[in-house]
Amino acid sequence: MTKGRLEAFSDGVIAIIITIMVLELKIPHGSEFSSLEPLLFVFLSYILSFVYLGIYWNNHHHMLHTVKEVSGGMLWANLHLLFWLSLIPFTTGWMGENHFTPMPVALYGVVLLMAAIAYFILQNQIIKKQGKNSLLKKAVGNDIKGKISPVLYVISIPAAFINTWISEALYVTVALIWLIPDKRIERTLEKTDDQL
Amino acid sequence: MTKGRLEAFSDGVIAIIITIMVLELKIPHGSEFSSLEPLLFVFLSYILSFVYLGIYWNNHHHMLHTVKEVSGGMLWANLHLLFWLSLIPFTTGWMGENHFTPMPVALYGVVLLMAAIAYFILQNQIIKKQGKNSLLKKAVGNDIKGKISPVLYVISIPAAFINTWISEALYVTVALIWLIPDKRIERTLEKTDDQL
Amino acid sequence: MTKGRLEAFSDGVIAIIITIMVLELKIPHGSEFSSLEPLLFVFLSYILSFVYLGIYWNNHHHMLHTVKEVSGGMLWANLHLLFWLSLIPFTTGWMGENHFTPMPVALYGVVLLMAAIAYFILQNQIIKKQGKNSLLKKAVGNDIKGKISPVLYVISIPAAFINTWISEALYVTVALIWLIPDKRIERTLEKTDDQL
Amino acid sequence: MTKGRLEAFSDGVIAIIITIMVLELKIPHGSEFSSLEPLLFVFLSYILSFVYLGIYWNNHHHMLHTVKEVSGGMLWANLHLLFWLSLIPFTTGWMGENHFTPMPVALYGVVLLMAAIAYFILQNQIIKKQGKNSLLKKAVGNDIKGKISPVLYVISIPAAFINTWISEALYVTVALIWLIPDKRIERTLEKTDDQL
Repeated sequence: MTKGRLEAFSDGVIAIIITIMVLELKIPHGSEFSSLEPLLFVFLSYILSFVYLGIYWNNHHHMLHTVKEVSGGMLWANLHLLFWLSLIPFTTGWMGENHFTPMPVALYGVVLLMAAIAYFILQNQIIKKQGKNSLLKKAVGNDIKGKISPVLYVISIPAAFINTWISEALYVTVALIWLIPDKRIERTLEKTDDQL
Repeated sequence: MTKGRLEAFSDGVIAIIITIMVLELKIPHGSEFSSLEPLLFVFLSYILSFVYLGIYWNNHHHMLHTVKEVSGGMLWANLHLLFWLSLIPFTTGWMGENHFTPMPVALYGVVLLMAAIAYFILQNQIIKKQGKNSLLKKAVGNDIKGKISPVLYVISIPAAFINTWISEALYVTVALIWLIPDKRIERTLEKTDDQL
Repeated sequence: MTKGRLEAFSDGVIAIIITIMVLELKIPHGSEFSSLEPLLFVFLSYILSFVYLGIYWNNHHHMLHTVKEVSGGMLWANLHLLFWLSLIPFTTGWMGENHFTPMPVALYGVVLLMAAIAYFILQNQIIKKQGKNSLLKKAVGNDIKGKISPVLYVISIPAAFINTWISEALYVTVALIWLIPDKRIERTLEKTDDQL
Repeated sequence: MTKGRLEAFSDGVIAIIITIMVLELKIPHGSEFSSLEPLLFVFLSYILSFVYLGIYWNNHHHMLHTVKEVSGGMLWANLHLLFWLSLIPFTTGWMGENHFTPMPVALYGVVLLMAAIAYFILQNQIIKKQGKNSLLKKAVGNDIKGKISPVLYVISIPAAFINTWISEALYVTVALIWLIPDKRIERTLEKTDDQL
């Protein structure tokens, strides 16, 4: 079983997901600037989801880089991840079209949480297959980012029913945590860990 | 003729099919949890078809792994398979939107049956090309899964007009037969065969 | 400049064209068998276009197989071909939804004709680049298929205003000419040529 | 980190963008030639955007050809470029459906400008990573095209509110500048530079 086709298929699916999301930016009927206004929230949601999918693609890329042999478990864990990612255009559109009302914002978080869990499962499948000297295990380290993210999602889901902006702020926070170049933050976190 | 492009094209088409299916999850107008209710059947259909396409991608992957030379017959047998798979988003959407009424459920089975037959034709094209010592023929063995699946589809199609849940149960059964790790089941089946 | 990316991009575009066509098979509201009836013509058009795109992908595959160096002219000739192919979902949908009325059937032929011309231009770009001992030139031979097809399209376009079934018969004929295994027909044609 | 997956992902996204644009060519209800008339502007916009995306794909192809090592900065600069390109189907559709009214024409230019800036950032990321003897830096030279294009976009955006045809003429001009074979123009421009 070759890694190449797994990567190609995942790239294809993520590329399609990231691109069909833009179809939710429905072309307005008027041609005034004001006719774009109702799209503001959809556009903001689009940016957020684009960044998330970019992060997933990027991390997926790195993770598979450590893989030599593909197992059946990996294939299905990968499809499971792609399943949750494929729902992002739906939750993005629902959240955007309803101008960040509680239920859609919460559901957006639920799908992000499920994707994070699916990513975690895939990571473990790979580590398990690689055995004791797992390269991925070393690369991931204590995986602080991977542990903080789901915690923040779990907070943001009920928070949507208090104030949706808390949830949005948390979603942006998670994205930023992953966007900031890996090495620097990891070194910092390792040092922090050492001091604790 | 190279195998690489055949794989890449098939991967592309399957990746697109699996992803555009999500477009049938039409974003509801309301923002209450209850506005998601009409989507329940579409969502269940989506999960089922996602798993089926995942299985097809996975098996296609394995099957082509044994191929060294691509023949014209293979190319067209492959396109024929992709044709039937490309109809899955349509039957998935029709079945989901009509909440599992008989005709759409039966048609869903017809398309699955045609895809299974197309897969079987492709498999035979490859075995034929590989000749006497066909690697694929050895790998497939007595192909119990490949023989049971169309039988279950053939039962599920008329069954939809009695009770659609029988058909759905059969579709889920076929998916499970393929999902359960290959090696273990094949060994079991081989032993069963030996005892007969 | 590498051939790989040209192939990958073309495969991607053709895979997407062939797949988004199915989105024109709009899911009917009713769940009776009769609610599928209005889709009959769309479905027939879909099959025809699927076969055409399959032929283009197949031939494109073979043609690029002879290419070693990619020129700027080839890149643009290839994009020009993809442009006309990208209009096929539109003409397919228009022809199908209007149940094969003259104008859409004629336009379907116009787009096929333009694609055939674009393919011919791309072929010439490659032969020109390969120089005197062009491998593609030898492979193509007298290119009888490539010369007959546009002639049949040119007949089928005005014929649509007399009887659209003449045009449809011609479109099917061209598809069959290309579908029948290459070698046998080429040998036959070569013999016929020799006798003339 | 491998270049292959970056190319494959970018190809995938650009292939999808270029193809889903055709979905904005909504199939008209009538089957007369006149029912195609309202689509004229959408079709013209489609051609223009198709050419632009072809140019971007082509240039992206060349640019990445010089890359050996992929940096994190490149990955994100690339995603940033894909983000702006992904908005082209939206601005194309809005411009086409409103028959080239000022605001949509201006917005079309804004997205082209942002894509040009994003491309420039990606180019700089690559040059920076390649260091002193950057191959890309030599290939780009004084980058006259890259400098003229944004200037023309900046002119065309306000010009849309005077006469949208000025803007359209400028968009076509930029496309032509890039379409004309690189080497000849670059040699000419270099000579012109020398004379200045």
